[in-house]
Amino acid sequence: MMVASTAESRQDFYPTRYVAESVARPRMHKTVWGDPGSGPLGADQLEAYDRDGFLAFDCLFSPEEMGQFREELQRLTVEENLRGSDRLAPEPDSDGLRSIFEVHVLSDVFADLVRSDRLTAIARQILGSDVYVHQSRVNYKSAFSGSKWGWHSDFETWHAEDGMPAPHALSFTIALTENYPFNGPLMIIPGSHLSFISTVGETPPDYHKISLLGKSLPAGPVDRAHVTALAKRRGIRQFTGAPGSAVVFDCNCLHASSENITPFARSNFFIVYNSMENVIGDPYAAPGPRPQYLANRDFTPLR
Amino acid sequence: MMVASTAESRQDFYPTRYVAESVARPRMHKTVWGDPGSGPLGADQLEAYDRDGFLAFDCLFSPEEMGQFREELQRLTVEENLRGSDRLAPEPDSDGLRSIFEVHVLSDVFADLVRSDRLTAIARQILGSDVYVHQSRVNYKSAFSGSKWGWHSDFETWHAEDGMPAPHALSFTIALTENYPFNGPLMIIPGSHLSFISTVGETPPDYHKISLLGKSLPAGPVDRAHVTALAKRRGIRQFTGAPGSAVVFDCNCLHASSENITPFARSNFFIVYNSMENVIGDPYAAPGPRPQYLANRDFTPLR
Repeated sequence: MMVASTAESRQDFYPTRYVAESVARPRMHKTVWGDPGSGPLGADQLEAYDRDGFLAFDCLFSPEEMGQFREELQRLTVEENLRGSDRLAPEPDSDGLRSIFEVHVLSDVFADLVRSDRLTAIARQILGSDVYVHQSRVNYKSAFSGSKWGWHSDFETWHAEDGMPAPHALSFTIALTENYPFNGPLMIIPGSHLSFISTVGETPPDYHKISLLGKSLPAGPVDRAHVTALAKRRGIRQFTGAPGSAVVFDCNCLHASSENITPFARSNFFIVYNSMENVIGDPYAAPGPRPQYLANRDFTPLR
Repeated sequence: MMVASTAESRQDFYPTRYVAESVARPRMHKTVWGDPGSGPLGADQLEAYDRDGFLAFDCLFSPEEMGQFREELQRLTVEENLRGSDRLAPEPDSDGLRSIFEVHVLSDVFADLVRSDRLTAIARQILGSDVYVHQSRVNYKSAFSGSKWGWHSDFETWHAEDGMPAPHALSFTIALTENYPFNGPLMIIPGSHLSFISTVGETPPDYHKISLLGKSLPAGPVDRAHVTALAKRRGIRQFTGAPGSAVVFDCNCLHASSENITPFARSNFFIVYNSMENVIGDPYAAPGPRPQYLANRDFTPLR
C-alpha cells in the first residue's frame, strides 16, 4: 500500500484516493465519545446515534427564528462586497446560487447561530470534547433548478483533502425552508457511518472548484456497489420537516440529496463541528490544502 | 389569433404552441363523463377525481402479478429484434434505457394487461364511453441514473402534436417496482387539470425525438409562473406504493417526476386510454403526426 505523499510520518487509518480499488473497511474510531450525563441527549438518543449515525429533531429552532435567518440570507445574496467571491458557488446548469460558504464569518447573525447552546451542547456531548467550526454553509437548492448532491461521505473528503485524522466530527443541517419529500431533502443510509469506503482516483489540484459545483467527478464519489449493498441492508432515511427542524449526523454517513424540480426552494444551513482532539493537518490524499472558507484552520474552541 | 395550419376548419378549444404568451385558460370540457352506477368507482371516488384530477389505489394488482411483468420486461430489454428500435428511448446522460413504447404491441403479456377489466372498467366509467389505447410505455427510471420528467400536461402534447380534440382521455401508471418518496415517483398538482396552460414556441419537425429524451425543450414545457401559482394553491401530491399500486389521472393534470439517484430503480407501466368519442386527427400545432408507437391511430375499442 502506498502512503500519501504529504503525510508520510502519520498513520493513515482511512486510506483513500491513492488506493487501487474501492473497498469498505470497518470504522476504526468510536461514533459517540461522550456520555448521557454530559449534555442534553439521553441514553436512548445516544444509542440511536451510535447505531444509525444520526438524530433528527422536529423543532430545534422555531419557524419564527428561521425567518430571521432567511432575511439575513436574502441580504447576503445581494451584498455588493460578495459579488465574485469564491465563497459563492453557482448552480452548474442555471444562473442560480448553489451554496454560500463560511456564512458564520460573513454574518453576525449566523456567527451567533453556530455558537447557539442548542447546537454546541449536543456537538460537545457526542464528540466528548470541546469543538470548533470546521465549515459552515447554506445550500440553496433553488426552486425548479436546484441540483443534486451525489452519494458521499463528508469525512472521506475532509480526510483526503483537509487532513482530518479521524471521523471525530459531525454536522448539523437545519431547515431554512420546508423540506418536503419531493424538493430534494437530505437522504442518509442508516448505519453507513460504520464503514469507511475508499474512493479511487488521484485528487487533482484545486479539485474543490469542480467537486462543489456538482459536475461529474474524477475522484470522491462512492462506488455504486457499496451504496447499493448498504442501502439494501438498512434502506434510505429521508428527512423532511418545517423550518427549524434539524438533523445531526456523523461525518462518515453516506448521504445524498436529489435535484429540486418543484416550485418550492429547499434551503438548509449546514455547519460542521470538529473535535479539538481532531484538528486538521496536511491533506492525506491531495496536492495541497483547500481554502480557509472550506476548511477552517483557526482552531479556536467555541465557548 | 392564428390557427394551426393543419386544422383550419376545426374549432380549437385549447390553443397552444402558436400563441404569443403562456396563459392559463379554464378547462372547456368535463372531467368525469360517466356516473356512479356505470362502473366500479363510487360517487365519492368520482367526486374526488373530478376535484383533484386523480385517484390512487394501494393495490390494484398484487405484487406477485407485478413480478410477472417485471420478468417480461427483462425479456424485452434483451430481445434481439428490438435492438435499435425507435420504441426504445435511451437515458439522456447514461447508457441506460429511459422508456419502451408500445409494450402492449410488443408483448402478449402487456397486451392482456391493457385489456384487464380492473383498468378498462374504470377508464370506461370515468370517460363515459368505450375506450381504446392511445399509448403505452414502460418508464424505467434506473437506479442512480434515471432522469427527470419536467412539469407538463400530457394533453397539451397530445392536442398539439397528435391532434387529440379534448381532454377526454386518462392515464394509468402502475408501479412495477416500489415507488419510494426518494426514487423519483410521480408528482401531480391537485386541481391542475382544471386549467389548460398554453406553451409558447413552434413545434419543430420530429420534436418527439428531442422531447422524450429529457433534453432541454424548445416547446412544450410549462411556464414556471403557472406551475408555482397552481402548486401554491393546492400543493403537490407525491405517489408512493408497492408494486401493483396505481394512479389513474386526467390527461390534463400538471405532473412531473424527479431524477432517481438511489440504488432502487423506479419502473412504472404507463397506459393511456382515450374515449372513442375523442379519436385523434391532424395535429393542432405540429408540422406532422407523431409515429404510431407514440400516438396510436388504430381506433379499435377494447372489449
